[in-house]
Amino acid sequence: MTALSIDAERLIGRIRELGEIGRDGDGRLTRLAGSDADKAGRDRFVAWLRQAGLAVAIDRVGNIFGIWASTDNADKKPILIGSHIDTVIDAGIFDGCYGVLSGLAVIEALQAAGFIPARPIAVAAFTNEEGVRYAPDMLGSLVHAGGLSTEAALAISGTDGTQLGAELARIGYAGAQEPGFLKPHAYVELHIEQGPVLEREGLRIGAVENLQGISWQRVTIDGEANHAGTTPMSMRRDAGHAAARVITFLRDEARGSNSPTVATVGCMRFEPDAINVIPSRAGFTVDLRDPDEQRLTAAEAALSGYLDELAAAEQVTITVERLARFAPVAFDRTIVELIEDAARTHGLAARRMTSGAGHDAQMIARVAPSAMIFVPSIGGISHSPRERTNDADLIAGATVLLDVVARLAAAE
Amino acid sequence: MTALSIDAERLIGRIRELGEIGRDGDGRLTRLAGSDADKAGRDRFVAWLRQAGLAVAIDRVGNIFGIWASTDNADKKPILIGSHIDTVIDAGIFDGCYGVLSGLAVIEALQAAGFIPARPIAVAAFTNEEGVRYAPDMLGSLVHAGGLSTEAALAISGTDGTQLGAELARIGYAGAQEPGFLKPHAYVELHIEQGPVLEREGLRIGAVENLQGISWQRVTIDGEANHAGTTPMSMRRDAGHAAARVITFLRDEARGSNSPTVATVGCMRFEPDAINVIPSRAGFTVDLRDPDEQRLTAAEAALSGYLDELAAAEQVTITVERLARFAPVAFDRTIVELIEDAARTHGLAARRMTSGAGHDAQMIARVAPSAMIFVPSIGGISHSPRERTNDADLIAGATVLLDVVARLAAAE
Repeated sequence: MTALSIDAERLIGRIRELGEIGRDGDGRLTRLAGSDADKAGRDRFVAWLRQAGLAVAIDRVGNIFGIWASTDNADKKPILIGSHIDTVIDAGIFDGCYGVLSGLAVIEALQAAGFIPARPIAVAAFTNEEGVRYAPDMLGSLVHAGGLSTEAALAISGTDGTQLGAELARIGYAGAQEPGFLKPHAYVELHIEQGPVLEREGLRIGAVENLQGISWQRVTIDGEANHAGTTPMSMRRDAGHAAARVITFLRDEARGSNSPTVATVGCMRFEPDAINVIPSRAGFTVDLRDPDEQRLTAAEAALSGYLDELAAAEQVTITVERLARFAPVAFDRTIVELIEDAARTHGLAARRMTSGAGHDAQMIARVAPSAMIFVPSIGGISHSPRERTNDADLIAGATVLLDVVARLAAAE
Repeated sequence: MTALSIDAERLIGRIRELGEIGRDGDGRLTRLAGSDADKAGRDRFVAWLRQAGLAVAIDRVGNIFGIWASTDNADKKPILIGSHIDTVIDAGIFDGCYGVLSGLAVIEALQAAGFIPARPIAVAAFTNEEGVRYAPDMLGSLVHAGGLSTEAALAISGTDGTQLGAELARIGYAGAQEPGFLKPHAYVELHIEQGPVLEREGLRIGAVENLQGISWQRVTIDGEANHAGTTPMSMRRDAGHAAARVITFLRDEARGSNSPTVATVGCMRFEPDAINVIPSRAGFTVDLRDPDEQRLTAAEAALSGYLDELAAAEQVTITVERLARFAPVAFDRTIVELIEDAARTHGLAARRMTSGAGHDAQMIARVAPSAMIFVPSIGGISHSPRERTNDADLIAGATVLLDVVARLAAAE
């Protein structure tokens, strides 16, 4: 066996080539799950899988698998490398695609080196990770892990009124395999960080040891609309002001502690939304995240307690609707250590870290030992055409993935 | 001359009758300036003016005047009573209409009592006071006072793309008189308070001695959109959070002082307005009011200073656009004292007060001694179908108006 190495030029070239598929007249990249653009991206990916001599399997929710197996190892559970190739609207070219194409590049590198794996190695592109067209996000991996039935998934209606099942059939990706047919021995996902931590600390590799728990709530505050000129400050029941207090409370709580809890109010609406009327209603969302379930629960409780105080103090009515709740995910310690080892071997400065975003890995972690590798995102930017990672970092990440997969696939 | 008294039944009946004109299929009352509903309301009012034997004059911006003059007093400047009969969308029946119809009731009461005025007495309904369809509000009285040219007013485009001049012509209320043709000796406007003060204090009459200055600004805060999960709290440039700080600053400033300054943030928009994205932009309005010009200027300066601090502390960019600025208006002391006297005579508990809302009186105050009379608004509510004033308070207010006008019209 010769030395293992990623074909850097081919990997970067494919990332760019896939990144040109699904651009509109203004040059905006959008490949929503089940769309014509998604079909074009899938077709290109499947062609590359076939070029590499992999067996292509597509399951009923459209998850694509390229499998490298031999008669000697076909009875073993495979090492699975995965991510997604669907995108948000006006996307960058790295989110998801980088991990999928690196998975293929890893298999090709192993093949080129004459590596003989003890287990099959497969690369997966999971359907509808972004969740822009169909909710929930991470749908394909969720179904693969048994968290949602295939029938329920196929029946989901999209934001445009389409049905996922019908759209997959239309674009030729309603496959024959039963979701979950491929049971991995281990799962590794390589992804851009989508945050600023690695760049800020001058590091090349993140060994992702866990994934934050997420709590999404919608808060509605009802006060009383009144004339902005004639209502003394002391007599107001101002829903907008109460909403502002919640935002400053969340920030002050976060600043006043050493915990990694993050709190975001991303959506906000005032009613009646008139310059000279005291808001009768303010509706907003609260996104709380923490890698520790106990701390996340404590943050939710602190908010809830504050809302009770606020309702009394400001004479407003506050209702809370839970939109989503995911417990934190702890990744597999052995794989995380393999990632750290691999980074060290290649002289790449690394740290353990937490994923703030959701990823397919959190779903597959339900059914197999899993972990993730992060590379730096310039400026922490993602979900934007300004999403960037240096070529050298892209290759460094794929090289770490290659080493980790080789180690995992060498052992029985 | 017999004793002066308002025909209560007729006044209340007309307020209700006018309040039925312009209702939609759902029973919502809307008479926007220049609309078919406005025409129907104007036609009814003009019919009542003619029934009372008044000379009807309509000026080029559609202001309607009912004039009671005799050959003995026609050379004198008239006492003018006025307000408006246009409404907001889904309005109550009292705002404006109460003052106009009470003005007519006062003239009828004087006529019925055989009162011989030393000057003409006129009642006016000014065009587009509410400003819902055409900006600015208080348009008809502004033009009457010479604050806006007739040509400019007629050329104003509405929210629905119509032109005020064309709409007035279409409904038959583009009159022949030159705006400002009627130069009042004094102006009195009777209006519902639209605030909670009189009701809270158990008073029947407000002798309005001044009208708050108004400062309207639009504030735009630009930060940086980032992932809600992956961006540590310490690295955020959160425009929504900065906007919330401005709201709490304004409230804390108002609470920490004894000044009557009121501050309202009525409109708010976050961008991109997504649950899992830190807002890159927050745009909101600030409505500041104070009856004292110095204090209003100080409140504006305090806000401006805070915005500078905030921009530095939160690393955001803040731009401010001035939308409107009116200096406070002081009403005529002699007329205010006449109102207090009249209330006292009738055993009506009264206080001097400040108008928090804008009214036609503030425009006419530019060209004639002016003042206003307020009656209680139940719950302080206006611009709403829930706008209410007790019949007894409506008649009390009209009675005070009658006394004041009789005193003003008796003297040379």
